[in-house]
Amino acid sequence: MREAWVVGAASNRFGKMAETAREAATRVGLEAIRSAGLEPKDIGYTFVANCFGISEHQAHVGPLINNGLGIPSVPSVSLESACSSSSAALHEAFVHVAGGFADAALVIGAERLSHLDTLAATSYFAIAADYPYETKNGATFPGLYATLASAYAAEYRTTPEMFGAIAIKNHANAARNPHAHFQKELSMSTYLASPMVAAPLRLYDCCPFSDGAAAVVVAAKEFVRSPATEPLVIRASARAGAVTDMHDRPDLLGLPSTRRAAELAFRQAHLAPKDVDFLEVHDCFTIAEALALEDLGFFPKGTAARESAEGVTARDGRLPVNPSGGLKAKGHPVSATGASQVVEIFEQVNGRATGREVPRTETALAHNVGATGGSCSVHIFSRR
Amino acid sequence: MREAWVVGAASNRFGKMAETAREAATRVGLEAIRSAGLEPKDIGYTFVANCFGISEHQAHVGPLINNGLGIPSVPSVSLESACSSSSAALHEAFVHVAGGFADAALVIGAERLSHLDTLAATSYFAIAADYPYETKNGATFPGLYATLASAYAAEYRTTPEMFGAIAIKNHANAARNPHAHFQKELSMSTYLASPMVAAPLRLYDCCPFSDGAAAVVVAAKEFVRSPATEPLVIRASARAGAVTDMHDRPDLLGLPSTRRAAELAFRQAHLAPKDVDFLEVHDCFTIAEALALEDLGFFPKGTAARESAEGVTARDGRLPVNPSGGLKAKGHPVSATGASQVVEIFEQVNGRATGREVPRTETALAHNVGATGGSCSVHIFSRR
Repeated sequence: MREAWVVGAASNRFGKMAETAREAATRVGLEAIRSAGLEPKDIGYTFVANCFGISEHQAHVGPLINNGLGIPSVPSVSLESACSSSSAALHEAFVHVAGGFADAALVIGAERLSHLDTLAATSYFAIAADYPYETKNGATFPGLYATLASAYAAEYRTTPEMFGAIAIKNHANAARNPHAHFQKELSMSTYLASPMVAAPLRLYDCCPFSDGAAAVVVAAKEFVRSPATEPLVIRASARAGAVTDMHDRPDLLGLPSTRRAAELAFRQAHLAPKDVDFLEVHDCFTIAEALALEDLGFFPKGTAARESAEGVTARDGRLPVNPSGGLKAKGHPVSATGASQVVEIFEQVNGRATGREVPRTETALAHNVGATGGSCSVHIFSRR
Repeated sequence: MREAWVVGAASNRFGKMAETAREAATRVGLEAIRSAGLEPKDIGYTFVANCFGISEHQAHVGPLINNGLGIPSVPSVSLESACSSSSAALHEAFVHVAGGFADAALVIGAERLSHLDTLAATSYFAIAADYPYETKNGATFPGLYATLASAYAAEYRTTPEMFGAIAIKNHANAARNPHAHFQKELSMSTYLASPMVAAPLRLYDCCPFSDGAAAVVVAAKEFVRSPATEPLVIRASARAGAVTDMHDRPDLLGLPSTRRAAELAFRQAHLAPKDVDFLEVHDCFTIAEALALEDLGFFPKGTAARESAEGVTARDGRLPVNPSGGLKAKGHPVSATGASQVVEIFEQVNGRATGREVPRTETALAHNVGATGGSCSVHIFSRR
């Protein structure tokens, strides 16, 4: 197995796109290729994530993107793993490059939802739950994550302010990220005054519906071309599944797929949590950030929300978490989210995260969850 | 790169399923695993194709299938490449096993469409075309393939009876295939009397809307376990893209993605068309079978329909094509089609294609097209 590198990355501004997901994917894909000092003809395979393309009447979007890039004969495929679709696509790119099946692969995640009303958008998201047991009975994702938040609060006697601190920290980061959907700070009073969406989750505990596109180029060493860019070696690319349904789990105090993927990733990288300088984690709701940090092994069970309130995960804290603003404030264009986490890591390492720099950028971790943890991807990247 | 083998395969009867795609996928997946003499715990990755799951309110189906199989921690991902989705999934399984990333991988394609009316079903299929240029202007797949059929007939002066012969041959094969949707023979008079769907395509030139599920287990040599089963080594797994839109192509007398994927596959396998004993090709319409046989290099341009009318591609002919009955008569449950082609090859080799046996089964080829050729997969299998 050879090393696979992230050699380029790009993102548009998340929020509301005037263009279709296909158009945004093509444009951002080209930007990612150019950021690597490569040309489209260098790409050997294109992996696309665009779960909700059907809402724009468009499936089989990979060939259309490759046509737009001027590389029609290059094979492509779309991948879906709910909210972890583009990290699942990244994993395939890693496997193709590390295994020698492609020298350079393009990973694109793109989503448009803003043409749908809130009910339709929520319904699209909800198809990633278990239809006969969850969705059909009215369980959408805010409700499912509220169940996790309730269990956590009851077990660990947390306060709303601890979760507010996570939201406030992520908004503070997003306010300095030109790719972010919400580029504004959040105050504790605004957080506490925001309406309940699904108790105990308030509006500001929840990520928004966002449009967006993000792309990453994965390549073998000899395709490290751009002298202006520092590439990242992929130290680990691991995925895991878990029992999908909340009612079938032995406990609700974590996501087993995160634990499993983290265990595999740290073993693959020969690293431990103490070696990681900063993280992008899947904070679709504030509770998800707390669970992620514990399941990944960075904090003991029941302490992550408390530590976050102490500033440990701030940009200048001991362990910066979601310097991009996370799903919570950068936004969550479902299929673009996993790729956008890598864009943030790439920009931090390359000194392009102006105004939101983290202190140390040797090694970073990206954590992306599908649904309530039916799937999870963990990637670890290092400078060399 | 190590060898990857098809060690197990299973299919349900195509047509109308009483169960959901998810239920069928789980059941047929388990049958495929057992046909290999393996247990679910032997599976390291699950690749699922279920393009139209949204019509059943279900995305992120891989974890649900793995849960049903009792292997919740195993990673999974769904793949979409229009009508070539499960051959794209097979390609990923090949890459994972050949590259040493998994020892055994499960590929499942499943689709249910029978709960939709014909207009809704046609609309689902149509999202795989280019929306702003094709679909939005009324071009659905019968119309797009009719354009190819018109160009072919005009250039090569073929007769309707030549295409009728393809349909009749495939129905004759399907009549002997317990997995087939249409298990009945077709006469030339019935063919010729059938209504025009999109001139020159008659009803019996077109594949049906089918429900169905098919699964294949790909594994490394040490997972060849079942003494009762002869595994197949994957000699080639190749995919290619092409210019998607009909109006952008230099000619309409073939599919460039088939030509490209075939070239790659024969090179990878160190084989030529003369080495192939029988084929499963993508005959969504009769014209597609003729084009496939020419683009794959088995017949000179403009001769495949004529040769088919002479019986060359019959079960007992020089080159048996679609002994399963093909998409035309076995049926076309979109995401199950690519996997089901491999099921037929596996059953032929293992002496389970009772009543429809082909004379020689050393080497076989499977050809699966996405849309009007925006994607194509070609796989070549041999006994060892």
